[in-house]
Amino acid sequence: MDLDSKFSDISKTLKGSAVRELLKYAEQPDVISFGGGMPNPLSFPIDNIKEIINNILDNYGTKALQYGTTEGVSELREQIAKRMKDKFSINVNPTNIITLNGSQSGLYMVSKVFLNKGDYVVSEAPTYVGAISAFNAQAPSWITVELKDDGMDLNELETKVKKAIEEKKVPKFVYVIPTFQNPAGLTWSEEKRKHLLEIASKYDLIIFEDDPYSEIRFSGNHVKPIKYYDSEERVIYMGTFSKVLSPGIRLGWVAANDAIIRKIALLKQGVDLCTNVFSQYIALEYLKNGMIDKQIPKIVELYRKKRDLMLKSLEENMPEGVTWTKPNGGMFLWVTVDYDIDTEKLLKKALENKVAYVVGTAFYPDGRGRNSMRLNFTYSKDEDIITGISRLGKVIKEEIKK
Amino acid sequence: MDLDSKFSDISKTLKGSAVRELLKYAEQPDVISFGGGMPNPLSFPIDNIKEIINNILDNYGTKALQYGTTEGVSELREQIAKRMKDKFSINVNPTNIITLNGSQSGLYMVSKVFLNKGDYVVSEAPTYVGAISAFNAQAPSWITVELKDDGMDLNELETKVKKAIEEKKVPKFVYVIPTFQNPAGLTWSEEKRKHLLEIASKYDLIIFEDDPYSEIRFSGNHVKPIKYYDSEERVIYMGTFSKVLSPGIRLGWVAANDAIIRKIALLKQGVDLCTNVFSQYIALEYLKNGMIDKQIPKIVELYRKKRDLMLKSLEENMPEGVTWTKPNGGMFLWVTVDYDIDTEKLLKKALENKVAYVVGTAFYPDGRGRNSMRLNFTYSKDEDIITGISRLGKVIKEEIKK
Repeated sequence: MDLDSKFSDISKTLKGSAVRELLKYAEQPDVISFGGGMPNPLSFPIDNIKEIINNILDNYGTKALQYGTTEGVSELREQIAKRMKDKFSINVNPTNIITLNGSQSGLYMVSKVFLNKGDYVVSEAPTYVGAISAFNAQAPSWITVELKDDGMDLNELETKVKKAIEEKKVPKFVYVIPTFQNPAGLTWSEEKRKHLLEIASKYDLIIFEDDPYSEIRFSGNHVKPIKYYDSEERVIYMGTFSKVLSPGIRLGWVAANDAIIRKIALLKQGVDLCTNVFSQYIALEYLKNGMIDKQIPKIVELYRKKRDLMLKSLEENMPEGVTWTKPNGGMFLWVTVDYDIDTEKLLKKALENKVAYVVGTAFYPDGRGRNSMRLNFTYSKDEDIITGISRLGKVIKEEIKK
Repeated sequence: MDLDSKFSDISKTLKGSAVRELLKYAEQPDVISFGGGMPNPLSFPIDNIKEIINNILDNYGTKALQYGTTEGVSELREQIAKRMKDKFSINVNPTNIITLNGSQSGLYMVSKVFLNKGDYVVSEAPTYVGAISAFNAQAPSWITVELKDDGMDLNELETKVKKAIEEKKVPKFVYVIPTFQNPAGLTWSEEKRKHLLEIASKYDLIIFEDDPYSEIRFSGNHVKPIKYYDSEERVIYMGTFSKVLSPGIRLGWVAANDAIIRKIALLKQGVDLCTNVFSQYIALEYLKNGMIDKQIPKIVELYRKKRDLMLKSLEENMPEGVTWTKPNGGMFLWVTVDYDIDTEKLLKKALENKVAYVVGTAFYPDGRGRNSMRLNFTYSKDEDIITGISRLGKVIKEEIKK
């Protein structure tokens, strides 16, 4: 059978990467991997979930096991709106919320709703690898803008947006993860959040704000999501239950204006019909019973210690010329090596030394980032953080000496 | 904000239909709706699920609540392979199976993997409305082939395929639901299944076999899925847990050759990352413990009675010139009115008389089917089937008299 001629153009561009292949070795039990993006299993409220599920099955099992509406379970959308109000002072109508099979699905849906082939999409550099996969399924053109310690370089953004508009190609949206960014662990200042909205208003841009980590803050002052400052309905806000409940139940949501929610819902009918109803009822009870507010402090406590331990281990093991971010929350930090090294090549050596990370290039749509890597500090056991960073320090030191 | 200029071309084609709007009235409690495609809640094995979930949370909760691999939980893929072997004598390697967030996701993924804008896709006429939504997201050109009592008109198929090949546009795949088809309730004969594969082999075509209902047979002889006769790996087989366990847990799968599974997995990383892990563990236990084999006979018994009741009610209430299919399984039957009537216009009147159905045109990508409708016989209570069909008979009689 001649399959190659049958695949779509997009499908032909989908190829497994060498790095992904290498990361399979990271699954071996003796390798300490900082490569995954996984919450720590200790953060899962298993007893709560058990109580919740027995309650669901006793009281409304037939609803929770049946098909649901494409927009999502109404009571859950109300609870999400309430939480966005309570935690971030964001006013959003439940009908402006659609639930999704994980926030990855939101990345895909929003990109499919807006992007034609070749359209400009703007992101931070580096940006989330999952957003690169999702958006690339629409074959867009990327505009990447340097991420500084306090957020995107907004001068660079404005220059690049102007240039795109001169080409008569207004960027379709600006994708940002302003709080505890993945992969960099950095957080935008309040000033930059407001300034981004001014730029968006000036050039009629949509902002796509991905906010998986805001509730997982260990230190520093709370900053409101960009959506809070949005008076023109320019911000598509996306949240998830993956970091505060469980990623395995695949549940996220998007909050946006009526027309956008409607388009996502119409697309979703073809893409996956409706979001897992059982998962939605679990999340509904988790919010409604207030279990979430008892669980989050435990997660924060667990992760703060792990972050502190990783920062300390880096301090003790990394040679001069290696720098890293100090996140106030989230799950990741970003290591930069100020030498001419290639973390893709280095990964092979790291794996020989039984330690793994994600190479920096994975987070740039344009192949930059060769001297950087992302480390996850939430998943590993404490002793593995100490041992793993020691191994990584050794590998980097040897590479630099060459 | 100028949103209209920002939506993608595909997104601009997405519009809510007048019929869908009308169907909202069908949700009113006094309307008897045969419009939905829902299993009966009595078919859900709630006690089994409770037992299964407590077992999951006690024994491997941290795995079931964590992210999973894109291809799916290995043990579940093994159990699915085993079931395809046990029930249908199909030999498939677990690595040739990928789990999905419902089979709607399979419709979408397969179409995205194969279809460029304007590519030909072949379907039965009528065909499943969800396949039309999914495939239309890639803007294909449709070739529809008449569905006869014993399957697709294969002469028509061959003629149309030849014509497409003369245009140098080989159809990308042939989508069929050969057993208890949705919407028609018809089942392909063994001869036609084999003949379709011969045609596929002759013209190098892929078959996409959607098989949600094979296990829900009330009467007649078992027929093997087309996949069973497939010696050239031409068949992409799709199954689902929606009809034998629960649709709310959103779980389906695709079995196909290596290269296709690989493409789907690479696409899936961008579309939704991985399938609901918790749902996968529920299905795994349901298969492994053999609960499924105790549950299915109950579902079959429940639905057989409802089918019989609907057939009897139709016999008693429909005027001459109205015909309907007599399904040996599945969830739907198809009513054709041999008069110049328009079931879209009739729906308003039906709703005034507190009964609902899905209009025939929804199941044709090209607007045909005005004199037909799909009725679901699995969801309604027995007394509602009797009353609802009586109301429908009255409405049709009045319309014909005009």
